[in-house]
Amino acid sequence: MPATNGLHRVVIIGGGFGGLYAARAMSHPSLRVTLIDRRNFHLFQPLLYQVATGELSPANIAAPLRSLLRRQRQTDVLLAQAVDFDATGKRVILADGEVAYDSLIVAAGLEFNYFGHDEWRPLAPGLKSIEDATTIRARVLTAFEAAERTTDPAVRHRLLTFVVVGGGATGVELAGAFAELARYTLRRDFRSIDPTEARVVLVEARPRLLEAFPDDLSDKTSQTLARLGVTVYPNAMVTDVRADQVTIQRGDAKEVIPTGNVLWTAGVRTTPLAGRLAAATGAATDRLGRIVVGPDLTIAGHPEIFVIGDMAHFEHQGGQPLPGVAPVAMQQGRYAAQVIAARVGGKRPTRPFRYHDRGSMAVIGRSSAVADLGWTHLSGFTAWFAWLFIHLLYLAQFQNRLLVLVQWAWNYVTWNRSARLITEPPGSKTRSSSQQPAGGDDGSSTDTR
Amino acid sequence: MPATNGLHRVVIIGGGFGGLYAARAMSHPSLRVTLIDRRNFHLFQPLLYQVATGELSPANIAAPLRSLLRRQRQTDVLLAQAVDFDATGKRVILADGEVAYDSLIVAAGLEFNYFGHDEWRPLAPGLKSIEDATTIRARVLTAFEAAERTTDPAVRHRLLTFVVVGGGATGVELAGAFAELARYTLRRDFRSIDPTEARVVLVEARPRLLEAFPDDLSDKTSQTLARLGVTVYPNAMVTDVRADQVTIQRGDAKEVIPTGNVLWTAGVRTTPLAGRLAAATGAATDRLGRIVVGPDLTIAGHPEIFVIGDMAHFEHQGGQPLPGVAPVAMQQGRYAAQVIAARVGGKRPTRPFRYHDRGSMAVIGRSSAVADLGWTHLSGFTAWFAWLFIHLLYLAQFQNRLLVLVQWAWNYVTWNRSARLITEPPGSKTRSSSQQPAGGDDGSSTDTR
Repeated sequence: MPATNGLHRVVIIGGGFGGLYAARAMSHPSLRVTLIDRRNFHLFQPLLYQVATGELSPANIAAPLRSLLRRQRQTDVLLAQAVDFDATGKRVILADGEVAYDSLIVAAGLEFNYFGHDEWRPLAPGLKSIEDATTIRARVLTAFEAAERTTDPAVRHRLLTFVVVGGGATGVELAGAFAELARYTLRRDFRSIDPTEARVVLVEARPRLLEAFPDDLSDKTSQTLARLGVTVYPNAMVTDVRADQVTIQRGDAKEVIPTGNVLWTAGVRTTPLAGRLAAATGAATDRLGRIVVGPDLTIAGHPEIFVIGDMAHFEHQGGQPLPGVAPVAMQQGRYAAQVIAARVGGKRPTRPFRYHDRGSMAVIGRSSAVADLGWTHLSGFTAWFAWLFIHLLYLAQFQNRLLVLVQWAWNYVTWNRSARLITEPPGSKTRSSSQQPAGGDDGSSTDTR
Repeated sequence: MPATNGLHRVVIIGGGFGGLYAARAMSHPSLRVTLIDRRNFHLFQPLLYQVATGELSPANIAAPLRSLLRRQRQTDVLLAQAVDFDATGKRVILADGEVAYDSLIVAAGLEFNYFGHDEWRPLAPGLKSIEDATTIRARVLTAFEAAERTTDPAVRHRLLTFVVVGGGATGVELAGAFAELARYTLRRDFRSIDPTEARVVLVEARPRLLEAFPDDLSDKTSQTLARLGVTVYPNAMVTDVRADQVTIQRGDAKEVIPTGNVLWTAGVRTTPLAGRLAAATGAATDRLGRIVVGPDLTIAGHPEIFVIGDMAHFEHQGGQPLPGVAPVAMQQGRYAAQVIAARVGGKRPTRPFRYHDRGSMAVIGRSSAVADLGWTHLSGFTAWFAWLFIHLLYLAQFQNRLLVLVQWAWNYVTWNRSARLITEPPGSKTRSSSQQPAGGDDGSSTDTR
């Protein structure tokens, strides 16, 4: 393989689970690694919903990439945006420059799919970034504040209605967390409203929640959510989203739900970068735009280009692509690093990638979760405790782990959530002195924030 | 005094130290209290510089006002913006409504004074709000990232130059913290730059730093800052601020310092609300726009209107107004509550307000601070330890206290700062996919973020 100054240049795009674990596994001394990300931190996405619901602070679930890779002296971190590829010249085109590679690992993730209704995006934010989470947190808390001030019962009802679209793990976790926020955490904080009036609706297009889980765990999930007061609508499609209402189609019936709080977790598709990669390499893509990769995670005809994580379509047993979850990305990252090290070391080809599925879990609320470990199904407190333990283990930095544990323990004992801050966009200093607080009788004003 | 339904209506404007401590001291059963703030949280401002330098998370130093006042059932929190007063009709005019009062406590604080150069505000942000702190944090960290990418030594030098304007406690704390961030925390994180190249300049108009402190402590402060590599310019005025440079006048000499990172802590003035209050009541104001109050903290001719905290001009011994520090605001808040309770209870007038000065302190860096306790002066580790202890004691919520302690202990042991996140404005989702990372050779692009 080509090399420069005796060094083999590896470029990794994306500092999520796939990219980070690939970078961490790059230990061969002949490798020179550059990790490119638009953000300066790795985000522990599975806990992002806890930032949106005020349980954790952003810094609890994010760690600077430079810190995480500090000990790997042969690794550079570059805060930059990749926009295109020159597969022939082996260069990644950045928004403001370019980087040459000998091996390339693309791990740029997915974004939410609004199914052709991108105009819904500002009205029904998804949950992918820290900013999404703090936006949702501010919007939901502002709705409670506005409800406290209104005297119109219909307006109050609308302000206190929360619709979560998508019954996968993120949707279930958000719906459960919002129901608990309203019923327990905010219970004694308000004088004019009863936070238990809040209504949380979870809309899922398919017949059951958590489709990736076994039937019995889906049922347990529905029961637990019902006990928390969440209204679950299976077999339901969102057909319209506006600033003050959402329209749901259930069979032949249409229901208009007045609400200014719609959260989107319904579907994903690749970012435009995947399209650029497919165009540059001739790679095949699936219907979500994911890049189809071979047994060694490389693109056909380009053994030097790996695609891993959510962005990759890797066919598992029975032709099913692997799900877009953190363990898949982590294992693929480590595998790609091993393949590159083996090649550079002149070793024989490694065996094809195989995913070791250790199970999946989703948390529903305080002391309640479901877990499918393959050999057994857990639910309730046992599953929740296992979830807690595993997430603490995986949290990237020891400090975060300790802080999150203290925060969780405190929240558990007190039913409190301390990170309930309504913050404004940074840099909007001039606005802040003239800005009107959202409130009065028109909750729809919160939708533009 | 007038009352409604037998209840005496107290309105408090501002949830800072003055307003919060007033609200907490309102225990008389005949009082009905409304606390108005534009934000939903109380901010522990003395630690705000630690958010700006990535040591603490916003939620560590902010607590929801509703939670803090949860147990006071006769107290309402209103998320709203006060814009004017009707002193005759005893009403506060909100941006979207009005509130009637029998007694009014105004505690709306101060803002930074750019001495007629408000165009400098976006270029040289101050440090008053959570958003200010995260903006400064993002700007400084982005400058390091851009310096890592540039190949031009002059550009790198400019990117790594930080100018702090104002040598009061906040300026000293910021300068010390930035010097430590560059010299220790980021030391091993970068490959192309040496973070110790970073230059921190502290500009003070008067002959010495920490003017409110005794001479010996000012000297200690200058020495400690010099040891951290901070360049201190006493007797220096800022005469111009641009996106890529700042001009300093020292005596007859002018110096142009190329930098994109100017932080403003230089002077304060009241917010426009103070002017409205003076116009509505005929109250006298001082040259900073503060409202002159009598011995019982009320406005002449309006015994029902109290002004406390930074917004009040209260003459202490020798005609000097009290300084704008948290202990003054806290004691004034408690005093105002006592006066109102005494009046409602039909008791004889309370004695005039007297400030109990327990001393002042400023932290300079890791293990170093200065403290003037009146009966003794402390510096170095002893002062720093006292500072640590007192700030933990004062932190409003037990949970925050514990989390901050864990975070500080970790930072102390590891020299790390974990909250080093460059975050974008919430709600700028559409922008985030097209936004270019700040970088390349033009660091001035970071100035508009």
